[in-house]
Amino acid sequence: MAKSKFEYVRNFEVDDTCLRNCWIVVRLDGRNFHKFAEQHSFTKPNDDRALNLMTRCAQAVMEELEDIVIAYGQSDEYSFVFQKKSNWFKRRASKFMTHVASQFASSYVFYWKDYFQDQTLLYPPGFDGRVILYPSNQNLRDYLSWRQADCHINNLFNTVFWNLVQKGGLTTSQAEEKLRGTLSGDKNEILFSEFNINYNNEPVIHRKGTALVWKKIDETTTKTIKLPNEEKEKEIVVTRTRKKVTPLHCDLIGEEFWEEHSEILEDDS
Amino acid sequence: MAKSKFEYVRNFEVDDTCLRNCWIVVRLDGRNFHKFAEQHSFTKPNDDRALNLMTRCAQAVMEELEDIVIAYGQSDEYSFVFQKKSNWFKRRASKFMTHVASQFASSYVFYWKDYFQDQTLLYPPGFDGRVILYPSNQNLRDYLSWRQADCHINNLFNTVFWNLVQKGGLTTSQAEEKLRGTLSGDKNEILFSEFNINYNNEPVIHRKGTALVWKKIDETTTKTIKLPNEEKEKEIVVTRTRKKVTPLHCDLIGEEFWEEHSEILEDDS
Amino acid sequence: MAKSKFEYVRNFEVDDTCLRNCWIVVRLDGRNFHKFAEQHSFTKPNDDRALNLMTRCAQAVMEELEDIVIAYGQSDEYSFVFQKKSNWFKRRASKFMTHVASQFASSYVFYWKDYFQDQTLLYPPGFDGRVILYPSNQNLRDYLSWRQADCHINNLFNTVFWNLVQKGGLTTSQAEEKLRGTLSGDKNEILFSEFNINYNNEPVIHRKGTALVWKKIDETTTKTIKLPNEEKEKEIVVTRTRKKVTPLHCDLIGEEFWEEHSEILEDDS
Amino acid sequence: MAKSKFEYVRNFEVDDTCLRNCWIVVRLDGRNFHKFAEQHSFTKPNDDRALNLMTRCAQAVMEELEDIVIAYGQSDEYSFVFQKKSNWFKRRASKFMTHVASQFASSYVFYWKDYFQDQTLLYPPGFDGRVILYPSNQNLRDYLSWRQADCHINNLFNTVFWNLVQKGGLTTSQAEEKLRGTLSGDKNEILFSEFNINYNNEPVIHRKGTALVWKKIDETTTKTIKLPNEEKEKEIVVTRTRKKVTPLHCDLIGEEFWEEHSEILEDDS
Repeated sequence: MAKSKFEYVRNFEVDDTCLRNCWIVVRLDGRNFHKFAEQHSFTKPNDDRALNLMTRCAQAVMEELEDIVIAYGQSDEYSFVFQKKSNWFKRRASKFMTHVASQFASSYVFYWKDYFQDQTLLYPPGFDGRVILYPSNQNLRDYLSWRQADCHINNLFNTVFWNLVQKGGLTTSQAEEKLRGTLSGDKNEILFSEFNINYNNEPVIHRKGTALVWKKIDETTTKTIKLPNEEKEKEIVVTRTRKKVTPLHCDLIGEEFWEEHSEILEDDS
Repeated sequence: MAKSKFEYVRNFEVDDTCLRNCWIVVRLDGRNFHKFAEQHSFTKPNDDRALNLMTRCAQAVMEELEDIVIAYGQSDEYSFVFQKKSNWFKRRASKFMTHVASQFASSYVFYWKDYFQDQTLLYPPGFDGRVILYPSNQNLRDYLSWRQADCHINNLFNTVFWNLVQKGGLTTSQAEEKLRGTLSGDKNEILFSEFNINYNNEPVIHRKGTALVWKKIDETTTKTIKLPNEEKEKEIVVTRTRKKVTPLHCDLIGEEFWEEHSEILEDDS
Repeated sequence: MAKSKFEYVRNFEVDDTCLRNCWIVVRLDGRNFHKFAEQHSFTKPNDDRALNLMTRCAQAVMEELEDIVIAYGQSDEYSFVFQKKSNWFKRRASKFMTHVASQFASSYVFYWKDYFQDQTLLYPPGFDGRVILYPSNQNLRDYLSWRQADCHINNLFNTVFWNLVQKGGLTTSQAEEKLRGTLSGDKNEILFSEFNINYNNEPVIHRKGTALVWKKIDETTTKTIKLPNEEKEKEIVVTRTRKKVTPLHCDLIGEEFWEEHSEILEDDS
Repeated sequence: MAKSKFEYVRNFEVDDTCLRNCWIVVRLDGRNFHKFAEQHSFTKPNDDRALNLMTRCAQAVMEELEDIVIAYGQSDEYSFVFQKKSNWFKRRASKFMTHVASQFASSYVFYWKDYFQDQTLLYPPGFDGRVILYPSNQNLRDYLSWRQADCHINNLFNTVFWNLVQKGGLTTSQAEEKLRGTLSGDKNEILFSEFNINYNNEPVIHRKGTALVWKKIDETTTKTIKLPNEEKEKEIVVTRTRKKVTPLHCDLIGEEFWEEHSEILEDDS
């Protein structure tokens, strides 16, 4: 049972190193989440338990894996951005996407009960992932803008659609028919005139999605110490700065976010 | 907030289609499972709860995803073989590996309690995956032989090592020292002379690992029906053949297994 | 002017190793050869000087590079098949395609005058190349059949087309119009009824293209030697077997060719 | 002879699109040019005929192909830089490298006699090529600096080496031995003290290699025209600006070149 005789099969593995000096983005999408949402009675158009669970999982991914500088999620998808200069697992694409996918998926089951309490998880969900490389900061910003614009477009549609169904008494087919070909302005108008809803007052988490960034926070703890040349114990206050993953619901398309969080795109050479 | 302005970023996605007419293998490995095993008090050298949980997850993967004809697992790894002619997700490598990794990982948490009962899962585990292509049947068989030979080599070592420690009273360093440079024959001899163990009588699941294959089984159910031209209901026996994932612990290196399961390598053109 | 400071740029080179145990095919196509043919007054529908020059270049490629077992050419294209087990330049795809393309192109200029005599080559031609992998013998045979079927279809069309123009007095637009939507049978019929041409009697090089294979030939030379224990010199006949690239114009689609040249597909493991 | 039956083999071709928004560099190297140089009696350490022929070929490549903004050559290698935003052949790597390699190789034979006059070209030379992507301007500049630093190091070595052999009367082994372990300063010192040569006065083409850039030039021609309302013909001077490939032998490592030719790296978005 010589091992060596078979070991030649290792040579069939291919090198999938990501091009250096590029942002590495891993995007996950829930597998058949339309059906998953129905089976688990997600509220329409947005289920905050589900959104917060997604963000909890993304936070676990950011804390557990290396070199993620920002994540962005909406609906059943999440994107993770690894820094340009990352050399984690020698930049092998398969390592990046499978570690993200598996960590996210196991976290989804693990943290389920923290968000859905007594509601049973019926089966373990799947996620698909991909790796995309972006050479320039502008490309990366445009990627995140693309996902946030997508969030906006979908949420506006879903908000009107489900208001028409839930409050307006339309069937889903009727609602679909009514919205066919409408522009953003039309949808805003329907919301306002028919349901007295100003879209801009809708929850920002639904309109903007969730960005996860590292924030420095000061943690203050009290320690009891005994100095060698003193007789009594003494209480001292210790402040330690550490970085913590923090969710934000804000615009990523304009300049403001990137000026406030300039460390994200800073040249890390 | 024009979507189109940003949508160009989609063009940065690359095509990762797997070469046609090749076996597609996805292999998963547990992330930091040495530490995970210690933190969850896995028994040494093998923990049957852990092995059976791994197999339960692999079964979920096989049943949930498409076109997997055989899987093979040992220790904290599992390999999944997709048929040569599979066109699942247009053969995109990233789809294969992330679906396998995420489905396996979420199943691991989901089914944990079925195998570990009251023992708490401390944190959600991660798995890394890769895709490897094999053009010929012989290459595929050699791949599986390679993994099974690896299982044998590791299990023989671990069996002797932990007997020396657990029964022989050696420290782990002493056991390591004693085994340095020994061949298979030497290890068998130590097992037999010092612990009266014939390695070949060790549990076959530990020596051979676990292969998962599809088996046709006849399911017999009793149905109550009422025929139109009869007055009374009637009980009839219905036999339905369906395919079920079945675990086997047997030699994959010789010819026998492949003759018995000739459908696996059969030309599926 | 430290070299090391810049040398990091080497890490941006990617590994393009061809999957092992696959046939490696490099196909070349002439760049803008439609225009090139016109500028150099190639005869229509086939110019034997041009075809033979192509074959001369392909022969140079086969003799100069390693591991090519068969080549096939027609019109302005040539395909080169490297054996499955080739480890030339560690199977790097870029090496295969650029060596073939450059050797072919430099040979085209070098050997031009042997085929076009006094006719001046107006400018150096270009060729584009690609690498394609085929896992099985059947795939490889189907590739070559595809190219030969393509040769047949184009040559039949071109033969009718240029007969209509050159002998039938049609303009090129009229000939195109006349052939629109016709099947093979129709084209054969036009050739026969209008020009008394039986397509099957057309030159086989035009109908089948050119395959280049290695043929063993016995070379007999006479050497003058003087044996140590003899006084006079003596003439002896020496026969040496060596392999030579040989052009064939025959069917590659049926079994016959592959039975006669069974060494090409023989398992080289 | 159905074409369609075989056409499935096209699906085995893989997509090799270059990542967008990256500089595409194709580097060519002469195949076995050490031997080629000896067989064609190239002068040592530099043969200007050979260097100028290389540059003539590179010029042909730049003029014939699309989107090349700068080329750099030394010894038997040449690098071609395609602009970041190029969409030539949809950025397929194989197209870039084979077109460059074949155009260069056919030009080498075509233009040979313009540089080597009566000296016969013994056989058609080969070149190998590769594609490398650089995401940032700095990466691209560092690549070119790397090649120019390589030129310097090799030329300094070769200049000393061949002076030791040709004027100093050393054998090649003795010269090699003498230079083993020497630094740049040592080599400069040998050149000066033994041969009265100041390396900095050596021909700049040998010390810096050759960069090819596009230069706008005004072409003035005299045309004879006859205006409708005048009786006599009239000569007028017409000035047309066009871009022409121009060789430069200068430092590429410092800022000066890039400031003077700022259009090369200018954002072409």
